[in-house]
Amino acid sequence: ELVQLTASQFQTPQLKGKHLVITAGPTREAIDPVRYLSNHSSGKMGFALAEQAARMGASVTLISGPVTLPTPAGVTRIDVTSAQQMLQAAEQSLTRCDAFIATAAVADYRPSESAAQKLKKGEADLSRIELTENPDIVATIARHSMRPSRVIAFAAETQDLEAYAQRKLDKKQVDAVVANDVSRTDIGFGSDQNEVLWVTRDQSQPFGPDTKSAVATFILEQLMTLDTSA
Amino acid sequence: ELVQLTASQFQTPQLKGKHLVITAGPTREAIDPVRYLSNHSSGKMGFALAEQAARMGASVTLISGPVTLPTPAGVTRIDVTSAQQMLQAAEQSLTRCDAFIATAAVADYRPSESAAQKLKKGEADLSRIELTENPDIVATIARHSMRPSRVIAFAAETQDLEAYAQRKLDKKQVDAVVANDVSRTDIGFGSDQNEVLWVTRDQSQPFGPDTKSAVATFILEQLMTLDTSA
Repeated sequence: ELVQLTASQFQTPQLKGKHLVITAGPTREAIDPVRYLSNHSSGKMGFALAEQAARMGASVTLISGPVTLPTPAGVTRIDVTSAQQMLQAAEQSLTRCDAFIATAAVADYRPSESAAQKLKKGEADLSRIELTENPDIVATIARHSMRPSRVIAFAAETQDLEAYAQRKLDKKQVDAVVANDVSRTDIGFGSDQNEVLWVTRDQSQPFGPDTKSAVATFILEQLMTLDTSA
Repeated sequence: ELVQLTASQFQTPQLKGKHLVITAGPTREAIDPVRYLSNHSSGKMGFALAEQAARMGASVTLISGPVTLPTPAGVTRIDVTSAQQMLQAAEQSLTRCDAFIATAAVADYRPSESAAQKLKKGEADLSRIELTENPDIVATIARHSMRPSRVIAFAAETQDLEAYAQRKLDKKQVDAVVANDVSRTDIGFGSDQNEVLWVTRDQSQPFGPDTKSAVATFILEQLMTLDTSA
């Protein structure tokens, strides 16, 4: 068993020759030059995945929303702010992409209008923000004419993880959904730990709690065993 | 002149015995456990002020919204998230406060309702967010029965700095307004540089562009010369 473990740790890179595109972090949707809508994603899970994939020999493009994390070694990073910018970067990365992993917490909605000047009390109606639905990036990639052979979505939920993940699998036409419970304060958003449920049409496998680095390795190993011929 | 400069750098702390309360950073207003409204404040200007004030011998309480900055040496830091939490912390700090400096970019509005569970497309109306006005922290402190002798507001503007600063001076009943132009990308939000306009009822004095540390020193020196007897 010791021999096996050692062998597994030092084996040849399992993702050599593969190109992975990973989205990470939140998006920010401008209300005006100062204000925005966003969410609590730290980007840590996506950055851990990019780092592990590069270590496993993959060529990695990391499309990141505004985060405060350093770029992992050997990873090509593209910084974006809004969901629309993230979609554009994602589509442009499809020319050579074997797997697309969407960890980013993309804002579902953006302000219908974004003001060029700071909105001021008394001069603008600030009592409500009208919203427009953002493009669904992972669903767009999964239905794309240049669809990569593997497309993985993440699902940040606060309840009924497995049910929502199964629904997302069908709705977004992805090969697997990685669900996690963001209502827990010990894991997920901002934390270095995570606990996930890997959900495909055939199986549902929990992993963790463990470091986001270990979770990243688990996800990449699951990704490699995915049967997409079905 | 050399002697004068040297003397000024090594003179006795000019704020010894004074207690300054400084607010910094953005506030985040929850839409649900995942989404929020916020703004681009990095907190750097407030943290630079706290650091300089402590160096000048003041006792400093720094009330900070969510930022990624380390606490300056010798500064007491209170972390908050929302405008309501920031107001509460500010009011609690008034028992012993000589000057209140409001650098925080407090959200003017918060979602009228904050959902306990993540709002899901198709289950909740996400086409608009209804907003409720937040308390005006610096105006509340300036009208407080325990008002400190000096209250300073910041104004992040994208146009007509001086006019807006003069208006803010009256409206908020503060002793001075520090205005800066956040439409410029070389200074202000996120930058280590700033250029400000110090506006009182009697004068308007520009400073910078310079480091936020130098701007902090300028502001504290202006603060000490403020005549509040008028």
